[in-house]
Amino acid sequence: MLKRQTKDFINIDPLQTGGKLTEEAKQALLEWGDGYSICDFCQGRLDEIRTPPIYDFVHKELPEFLGCDVARITTGAREGMFAIMHALAKKDAWVILDGNAHYSSYISAERAGLNIAEVPNTGYPDYLIKPDKFEEVIEETERKGEIALALITYPDGNYGNLPDAKKIAEICKSHGIPLLLNGAYAVGRMPLKLKEIGADFIVGSGHKSMASSGPVGVLGMKSEWEEIVLKRSSKYKNKEIELLGCTARGVSLITLIASFPAVKKRVERWREEVEKARYFSSKMEEIGVLQLGEKPHNHDLMFFSSEKLFEISKKVKDGRFFLYKELKSRRIHGIKPGLTKHFKLSTYGLSKEEIEYVLNAFREIIEKYEK
Amino acid sequence: MLKRQTKDFINIDPLQTGGKLTEEAKQALLEWGDGYSICDFCQGRLDEIRTPPIYDFVHKELPEFLGCDVARITTGAREGMFAIMHALAKKDAWVILDGNAHYSSYISAERAGLNIAEVPNTGYPDYLIKPDKFEEVIEETERKGEIALALITYPDGNYGNLPDAKKIAEICKSHGIPLLLNGAYAVGRMPLKLKEIGADFIVGSGHKSMASSGPVGVLGMKSEWEEIVLKRSSKYKNKEIELLGCTARGVSLITLIASFPAVKKRVERWREEVEKARYFSSKMEEIGVLQLGEKPHNHDLMFFSSEKLFEISKKVKDGRFFLYKELKSRRIHGIKPGLTKHFKLSTYGLSKEEIEYVLNAFREIIEKYEK
Repeated sequence: MLKRQTKDFINIDPLQTGGKLTEEAKQALLEWGDGYSICDFCQGRLDEIRTPPIYDFVHKELPEFLGCDVARITTGAREGMFAIMHALAKKDAWVILDGNAHYSSYISAERAGLNIAEVPNTGYPDYLIKPDKFEEVIEETERKGEIALALITYPDGNYGNLPDAKKIAEICKSHGIPLLLNGAYAVGRMPLKLKEIGADFIVGSGHKSMASSGPVGVLGMKSEWEEIVLKRSSKYKNKEIELLGCTARGVSLITLIASFPAVKKRVERWREEVEKARYFSSKMEEIGVLQLGEKPHNHDLMFFSSEKLFEISKKVKDGRFFLYKELKSRRIHGIKPGLTKHFKLSTYGLSKEEIEYVLNAFREIIEKYEK
Repeated sequence: MLKRQTKDFINIDPLQTGGKLTEEAKQALLEWGDGYSICDFCQGRLDEIRTPPIYDFVHKELPEFLGCDVARITTGAREGMFAIMHALAKKDAWVILDGNAHYSSYISAERAGLNIAEVPNTGYPDYLIKPDKFEEVIEETERKGEIALALITYPDGNYGNLPDAKKIAEICKSHGIPLLLNGAYAVGRMPLKLKEIGADFIVGSGHKSMASSGPVGVLGMKSEWEEIVLKRSSKYKNKEIELLGCTARGVSLITLIASFPAVKKRVERWREEVEKARYFSSKMEEIGVLQLGEKPHNHDLMFFSSEKLFEISKKVKDGRFFLYKELKSRRIHGIKPGLTKHFKLSTYGLSKEEIEYVLNAFREIIEKYEK
């Protein structure tokens, strides 16, 4: 049997902390595991299935949760970004990406045939995306051609920085450019409403931040975009072209639905998650591991820099794998094997005891090798 | 808890008979249910993950099974078709589709901006796709513009017809047109090797025919297409554009891998499945329910036509839902609610006892209302 080595470890991998299944989702997994089981009573389109209650989820609960008019299921945040970009793309047009964008934003644009303009971040140590710079790049790009879309990563997956999305949305609006929020690390972790931000599109990731099995994601938009992004096939009148008819037609969607009540509740506790992250960051800094990115920090995903751990790695038997191995021996998973100088981690969903345990592990490891 | 109403029913829905999980896959589901669990040890790309053994699966087992040079994981057959069409699309180019193609082939082409030419089937009662007709449509279309791709559905999802793929592949080759086999109802059910057919691409569906949870699929190709279809990003050198970096990054892929040994074995028993289907068909015809499509039939998916059931539906209390309800009361699931005159079903994986039970159900229902 295919066993998972890291099961029951404390997991601090930012990619994984928001994707742990709830008990409800675990039960749903076995009940609906078979292939097309969720399509038992399909009448032609995924989002219209009433048993299980996909229709209500997509057309009622999800728009309310995302603060948007129209929502759909995708196979992930990146597939949502691509669907939007592909629907909006025109010959020789541009997309504006923030410099902290996930690689999949870049590749979605590349696949959609869009030219890409990047808004640089402020560099070391904060790596911020500033609205002024965003506007500057928009203005430069307008001189080169039509801008089909702008995108901000909210927060980004490297530093966990939350740019001033409202301000950027205002800027985009004043330039007549639709704005897409990549909320893969936000939707399902923190409160976030598309209309409060003032953006046009939002994507989220079920497997990254909504306690779901992968692959599954969500897509929200203002109603004015519905006819463009959800354009129907000319031959199959009920099928949406950019979704190829149906998207996450399987069990991952059921876990998303099953976890959703718990996810709605957990976003209300976001303030606590931010406090935990800040506490963790301050304690890491006390042992000489510096947090880069926004400070005080506003998200559970944090980027750390450690000259100390890097120096140790140059001297020890296991080399740069020593940190990974030390953490593994303490049943802590989530920092990539081989990293010591720069690494990211997340404290999302960890109990206070687990936070202390992880902090202690770092303290012990540094002390052990500094003797 | 979200309960599945049809669990433990005898399932004759063609969409579902090949997607029932094996015991191994059920165990893997719970072990790997959490979000990005399969990415615990990812070094940058899904198909290169060694723990769990995705690398071996994608680069060794799958190409051997599909009889191709290069294989990848997709989120389903349609996403594989779209990736190929999108990679091959050129301005004003055409795609040739067989007239029995699944709607998602048509929509993939529409999304990829290709003009569509359809090869008509022979119509009632067989609905065959004939190689001669295929060539005729190719020749007509060549006069209109460049043909980027041809596609055959093998078998189609309506009649379960298996066209002469070798012959069609030869024709395509002689015209210099790459051929894609949509094997969503073949790969994982019956033996099928891309190179034996002589086609260029093949797609399969994990949730439809490989005993997997959805959404997940497979894509195979001849090596000459690798650089075009799996073109890398100019900025992220390791990421394949048409796959947006990674595809089925979650638990559905683990079920595909866990079921694979059983799937490899079951395709060897294909002859028995065909015999069962033919037996079923002959017995249905004895009670006046006619099988349309190829005869003798070569696949478990069959299309039936019944004037008798249709006549009954006009007279009874439940109207056209009577057949669905009668089958449901006998714990048989898979014929869409409301259908009586035309319906499809599949005998895949059913035991001989179950086959008799289903046949008896039809007999009983007809007798009951014909009294």
